[in-house]
Amino acid sequence: MKVVYVVPGPMDKEEVKRRGELLQSWANKDTEVDIIAAEEGPASIESMYEEYLSIPATAKIIYDLEKKNYDAAILGCAGDPGLDAMRELTDKMLVLGPGQTSMITGAMLGNKFSVITIEDSMINSSYELAYKAGVLEKLASVVSVNVPVLELRENREKSLKKIIDAGKKAVENDRADSLVLGCMTMGFLDVAEEIEKEVGVPVINPSKIGLKMAEALVGSGLMHSKKAFATPLKLKSGKVNSLDELNVK
Amino acid sequence: MKVVYVVPGPMDKEEVKRRGELLQSWANKDTEVDIIAAEEGPASIESMYEEYLSIPATAKIIYDLEKKNYDAAILGCAGDPGLDAMRELTDKMLVLGPGQTSMITGAMLGNKFSVITIEDSMINSSYELAYKAGVLEKLASVVSVNVPVLELRENREKSLKKIIDAGKKAVENDRADSLVLGCMTMGFLDVAEEIEKEVGVPVINPSKIGLKMAEALVGSGLMHSKKAFATPLKLKSGKVNSLDELNVK
Amino acid sequence: MKVVYVVPGPMDKEEVKRRGELLQSWANKDTEVDIIAAEEGPASIESMYEEYLSIPATAKIIYDLEKKNYDAAILGCAGDPGLDAMRELTDKMLVLGPGQTSMITGAMLGNKFSVITIEDSMINSSYELAYKAGVLEKLASVVSVNVPVLELRENREKSLKKIIDAGKKAVENDRADSLVLGCMTMGFLDVAEEIEKEVGVPVINPSKIGLKMAEALVGSGLMHSKKAFATPLKLKSGKVNSLDELNVK
Amino acid sequence: MKVVYVVPGPMDKEEVKRRGELLQSWANKDTEVDIIAAEEGPASIESMYEEYLSIPATAKIIYDLEKKNYDAAILGCAGDPGLDAMRELTDKMLVLGPGQTSMITGAMLGNKFSVITIEDSMINSSYELAYKAGVLEKLASVVSVNVPVLELRENREKSLKKIIDAGKKAVENDRADSLVLGCMTMGFLDVAEEIEKEVGVPVINPSKIGLKMAEALVGSGLMHSKKAFATPLKLKSGKVNSLDELNVK
Amino acid sequence: MKVVYVVPGPMDKEEVKRRGELLQSWANKDTEVDIIAAEEGPASIESMYEEYLSIPATAKIIYDLEKKNYDAAILGCAGDPGLDAMRELTDKMLVLGPGQTSMITGAMLGNKFSVITIEDSMINSSYELAYKAGVLEKLASVVSVNVPVLELRENREKSLKKIIDAGKKAVENDRADSLVLGCMTMGFLDVAEEIEKEVGVPVINPSKIGLKMAEALVGSGLMHSKKAFATPLKLKSGKVNSLDELNVK
Amino acid sequence: MKVVYVVPGPMDKEEVKRRGELLQSWANKDTEVDIIAAEEGPASIESMYEEYLSIPATAKIIYDLEKKNYDAAILGCAGDPGLDAMRELTDKMLVLGPGQTSMITGAMLGNKFSVITIEDSMINSSYELAYKAGVLEKLASVVSVNVPVLELRENREKSLKKIIDAGKKAVENDRADSLVLGCMTMGFLDVAEEIEKEVGVPVINPSKIGLKMAEALVGSGLMHSKKAFATPLKLKSGKVNSLDELNVK
Repeated sequence: MKVVYVVPGPMDKEEVKRRGELLQSWANKDTEVDIIAAEEGPASIESMYEEYLSIPATAKIIYDLEKKNYDAAILGCAGDPGLDAMRELTDKMLVLGPGQTSMITGAMLGNKFSVITIEDSMINSSYELAYKAGVLEKLASVVSVNVPVLELRENREKSLKKIIDAGKKAVENDRADSLVLGCMTMGFLDVAEEIEKEVGVPVINPSKIGLKMAEALVGSGLMHSKKAFATPLKLKSGKVNSLDELNVK
Repeated sequence: MKVVYVVPGPMDKEEVKRRGELLQSWANKDTEVDIIAAEEGPASIESMYEEYLSIPATAKIIYDLEKKNYDAAILGCAGDPGLDAMRELTDKMLVLGPGQTSMITGAMLGNKFSVITIEDSMINSSYELAYKAGVLEKLASVVSVNVPVLELRENREKSLKKIIDAGKKAVENDRADSLVLGCMTMGFLDVAEEIEKEVGVPVINPSKIGLKMAEALVGSGLMHSKKAFATPLKLKSGKVNSLDELNVK
Repeated sequence: MKVVYVVPGPMDKEEVKRRGELLQSWANKDTEVDIIAAEEGPASIESMYEEYLSIPATAKIIYDLEKKNYDAAILGCAGDPGLDAMRELTDKMLVLGPGQTSMITGAMLGNKFSVITIEDSMINSSYELAYKAGVLEKLASVVSVNVPVLELRENREKSLKKIIDAGKKAVENDRADSLVLGCMTMGFLDVAEEIEKEVGVPVINPSKIGLKMAEALVGSGLMHSKKAFATPLKLKSGKVNSLDELNVK
Repeated sequence: MKVVYVVPGPMDKEEVKRRGELLQSWANKDTEVDIIAAEEGPASIESMYEEYLSIPATAKIIYDLEKKNYDAAILGCAGDPGLDAMRELTDKMLVLGPGQTSMITGAMLGNKFSVITIEDSMINSSYELAYKAGVLEKLASVVSVNVPVLELRENREKSLKKIIDAGKKAVENDRADSLVLGCMTMGFLDVAEEIEKEVGVPVINPSKIGLKMAEALVGSGLMHSKKAFATPLKLKSGKVNSLDELNVK
Repeated sequence: MKVVYVVPGPMDKEEVKRRGELLQSWANKDTEVDIIAAEEGPASIESMYEEYLSIPATAKIIYDLEKKNYDAAILGCAGDPGLDAMRELTDKMLVLGPGQTSMITGAMLGNKFSVITIEDSMINSSYELAYKAGVLEKLASVVSVNVPVLELRENREKSLKKIIDAGKKAVENDRADSLVLGCMTMGFLDVAEEIEKEVGVPVINPSKIGLKMAEALVGSGLMHSKKAFATPLKLKSGKVNSLDELNVK
Repeated sequence: MKVVYVVPGPMDKEEVKRRGELLQSWANKDTEVDIIAAEEGPASIESMYEEYLSIPATAKIIYDLEKKNYDAAILGCAGDPGLDAMRELTDKMLVLGPGQTSMITGAMLGNKFSVITIEDSMINSSYELAYKAGVLEKLASVVSVNVPVLELRENREKSLKKIIDAGKKAVENDRADSLVLGCMTMGFLDVAEEIEKEVGVPVINPSKIGLKMAEALVGSGLMHSKKAFATPLKLKSGKVNSLDELNVK
């Protein structure tokens, strides 16, 4: 099985390599994981504007990757920017968003999950994501650590502590019985087990679960529904022949 | 009051002019309406991919327009592409999406409204829009005429007939007591009154109501909530000084 | 455009005049606003009983006003007492309730709004009103200042302080990002801007937004749905010829 | 136990007597049922306007009856007009609305109930009543026979047939597994058993269940919640001493 | 009328007798109440496992009791274990669960009710029960006293105090205006009136209301819906002739 | 990884073997799948009574299996009978129900899924299962083939045709864009791909997806939440030492 992980914006090569290796280490034996970062886009995603900004370039990468026989692609942002569009553009390659996938996993493991997000400004979009995932009913709360994405990596211990505090708050006040890390950078800190030990409930790492769910769905022969995510009419009818032609100037 | 209407993609100049004149004819005496079309983007919007494709260029226009003392900007697509992002980018200029505005008007006039959309592929996103607007509970159904946007204009009579048929279906089967036209091109056909006569329920024209609501909100001194739509952190903190700098290459 | 504002109970003439002048000052240039107070009814509305008590006399006024070529009537109480009945009785004159209109405006400006009401006893009916308006999903909370209506006016500064405190509570604890003043007397204190400055989110004045929405809807050629609010059968069929005949003794 | 049934409008004495006798025949051995009809109000209730019209006179009756040591009062209309207000006005006498009571009984007996109402114009208010009762989630549909209330009694067989047809439609198309008769005149036709035989699901007679629930609740020592339905402030504080004083002229 | 109360597990005879006598004292004059305890099953029910453990033996008792001309059976546990199955097995004898019945009564008396349960581990299942009852929308909260069932009886005063504290918390923080005791052992402490006096809102005793509702429904000629709770196919078709035969070994 | 599949009732050995082999053929290379059938219980599950009947024996098997170092157990019935109880009884071995798992997969692949169940009598419990899974919002409908479980296997072609017809109905009428097979016997017919070809939307096989999800969750180091599914108090506190002791006689 071939899975590709797509970072929706520029990222330093070392970190890209580190994330790729982590993903490969989490994969099944016969899964090959590639990683690719967009060459243009936001440095990190902390607003809806940055989500949208990342989509056109990332969509093009996804569209091209389908031709390279990947079985599945994973969007490398827990806000799942443009997931519906990516799914419109692919016919055979499953596309998964780690945000919705993580929330759905929370729904599977207990009665109520909370999402730990980076900034207050992302709380509302987390609720919208839960609605799109269909599990709003099980979302206990969205709590924020208020640390910008790019600082999260700089001080792992400090970040870990803030995440643990936010998680405890959700479990004690909001009836959460599992936690979803709402940011890929949190995910690649690889701290879920440590948080779990401190807070006492399952902690879902979007970076890892995205991959494992891709393996499960591809292994089941399942693809996202083309009735739900129809190919854009102009492409389907042959009026245009490429994504570039869809963008009129 | 100064209001600007922004078409989120290239459009022939004559049609832009025609739409601008219609808008001005609907405006209050002391409202000045300008219209501007993005120079790059989708030819029409019939998929989520095309919605996202339109956002970066349109957002930039909106961001620049705020400096020109407009009181309000109206997004020229009934899918409200990137409305949350546009609102993140503006501090003093109200931004409205005609899709959410029309649905909310449907909620105000009766108990259940239906949306008439262009293609089956846009049905799901109409439900999501109603959720974002907060009026999902009053959405009776989304019905589609299955006519591509660019053909809608070509044969006004045929389009009108299809819209009336779809509207009747919604009123008879789905308990709708008002109808929302779910596409700006439908809106600028200026057919709401004719449909109303045939179907017997209020018909909401997104092109017109977007403008009138902008006038009402600006006239009330109201702005979209900056707590709900926070300025992107990197802009706010001064780490970057322009939208261009947010887009790293 | 001719709009009439109907106070659903007796009010001292000076205050009626003051409110009428405020309304006219908020109106568009070509809008003429009249104001009329019922000669019988509750002194103020702080219970469901008083809401219902106000309806028969107010309905009769509304029914008669339609014959005087008004384009719209606004019910002068934020509980919208009998709004559905008033709409049943009118065919050409739009009737708006400032309560539902304000809540819908809250839904348009952000993700969650809170209502500031006068007494704990009105909290439940505010939730019901949000359900009727179709925006319950966006109602963050209803908070009360616990000041009787008639005292609100007596000490503007004290009232203002209590409203600000309640508003801050809603924003900090309940995820509200806009506030609705849930009482016309609060509205006519004309304090929205001062609260907005203190609390930092949009504050919706029901007295003002009711008028501006009436202008927007009439300006769009829209009327409430007669499919939703059918004329009472006995009136429609001609079995009775007046509201008085509907009331058998 | 003393229960009183209050018809919210004028009714011919013979029918009042007949209804009172039916109620007494349904009552427990030690329950004494009285019946009283308002001397003023709508001839029948087929619109929200007529609902509201009935409230002030009926509320006054209820208010006075509490002083006569009744344990419970039942509102004689399946729309439960002004139920919340009646409950605000009583401290020791339970007030029940047969509409909400019947819907709640439907919820108790199966998974989904449908309401059979008299006119299309009452469909929306039936949904609102289900929301107030808290059982909207179990409401399968509201179907209408489109027969005016006063004609229902005239031709029992024809009415019965129409109700059976509507009931079958609800059971076959809408997943209903019990039926609620949504009108007291239907209830006093005493046809529930005949419908049940034809349609094959439980049929809830609001006239009967209102009484039986009153007996059950009074027998359990339960009263409606005064926290939910607070006494109007002006009455409670002693500022006014009667309902008449609440109505200023 | 003959009603039977079935304790879903072994219980000491004295307590069975005491409960039976309490039930008879609460009954209408012409109601005969019998009580029977299963000879096998959990000592008390504090987990879903214990709920399920109780069902097979209890179902068999219910199935046999129907042949003894009881009009109604009441399940003796506020978790309503296997209520749907019991209803599948009976054709003429109404089966009621005190849990759902109590919640529905809460919905009838006010706007929001809270459930007081024994252990944190039963909170989630209380929410599920409210969903099954169809009144989730009116459930304010579930609060727990964290006292094991078998200890509840041992120290009536201590238990009462804990219940009062939990009830006050629900009323003050969660907008509850009535309380449901979520455990039969709480119910048979017969403390509802004392709690009501302390907390100031109606307190629903599941032990009592189960009986009174059975009387009301039987008195109305109502049975649970067989469309909702169909007889198991193998029994209905005659493929098996007894519950024992359904259990293959 | 070691996974065990538990059939919750007696099944002929050949079929057990066949199912075990199918499961192993679907498994990852390093997953070892065992299968075990309860020696006592229902011959098939077509009612809630049969669901409950299966639980005590199956729970005991699950409880014992945990000591044998399995990483995950899968309940062999799409109604997930007693899933919450099984999870209460295990501390280290993940327990999954194929019903909830399949519905959640439907939610992941599109906007609305429908469940194809065996009998009308199982429709209501499918809705309840979707509620428990947290994805009720995305459940388009439940459609039934009305073929008893034990006949499903006898005529594969006839069963397949009925399933396809039901699936088409759901897709055309109910807005479904994926289908869930609501019965393990359907699942082990291994017909998902054939249905998918005919109906044109993803078809989720509960037999397969249960296994693949178990692999994904175990592979992510995730376990069901013990906060959500607490160990029964008497077991945890050591008051009893075995499941047998919990069952008092």
